[in-house]
Amino acid sequence: MTEHAPPRSREQRKQDVLDHLRQDEDAWVATASPDGVPTLVPLSFLWEDDTGTLVMCTRRTNPTAVNVTPGGPIRVTLGPTRDVVLIEGDARILEGTDLPTATKEAFAAKLSWNPRGPRWVFLRITPHTVRAWRESNEIAGRDLMLAGEWLA
Amino acid sequence: MTEHAPPRSREQRKQDVLDHLRQDEDAWVATASPDGVPTLVPLSFLWEDDTGTLVMCTRRTNPTAVNVTPGGPIRVTLGPTRDVVLIEGDARILEGTDLPTATKEAFAAKLSWNPRGPRWVFLRITPHTVRAWRESNEIAGRDLMLAGEWLA
Repeated sequence: MTEHAPPRSREQRKQDVLDHLRQDEDAWVATASPDGVPTLVPLSFLWEDDTGTLVMCTRRTNPTAVNVTPGGPIRVTLGPTRDVVLIEGDARILEGTDLPTATKEAFAAKLSWNPRGPRWVFLRITPHTVRAWRESNEIAGRDLMLAGEWLA
Repeated sequence: MTEHAPPRSREQRKQDVLDHLRQDEDAWVATASPDGVPTLVPLSFLWEDDTGTLVMCTRRTNPTAVNVTPGGPIRVTLGPTRDVVLIEGDARILEGTDLPTATKEAFAAKLSWNPRGPRWVFLRITPHTVRAWRESNEIAGRDLMLAGEWLA
């Protein structure tokens, strides 16, 4: 038997998730075409505390953007495979010109990247389910958000 | 401008990919339902040099297994978001009773896990595309396998 640290409380896990959302730069992002072909790519992101959404940017022609045009289900993970934050949500496409100035500035400030022009589109991701676990002893209690509501 | 290490050669990247395949324990795995809902989970894996395939195990009822029943497209990433190994391939479901004994033993030896019984199914993943990159200066030249053939 591998020795694991004791399972974290729900409150601790939520705090750890928020730390990841505020501090991490990249996430793994999975989408699917309408006929069931998955895509999995790393994308940088901004987390907005006030809107409770993640903002990402990718090329308009990339499968990720095409798959969520105009909107659709998306899966996002933060952290390594033994410290998982798994987010299920819906993404919608936003043109750069439709992004609030404060969001655009926060995105550029966090990521040192200010995408402009028609080549790029933004994704705004609204989580509806959030789970977090490290090892097998944290599978129980891994649900932190269900139907868009934090449980803690 | 962020300073990056010089881009690796194709040969070096292939070697690094094989090191990841032989040494890493977990991967991120994306599949999709026939109607376009993605799933993204961490799964442990065994890489077989002789068959050139990855072997994973998951519960029969998990969306990952259901999505690839009996076979289907799958995406697998190894490594962190700034040292990406991205594998596009096809997965097929194998019953534990149909897995070669040598594979089963290698799986159990590597992962200290010997799944038995009808609750579990195995996935055998055949890569057709492999890409590897670290930072933006490695996007060019990131294709290492195309149509199932190593380029290096």
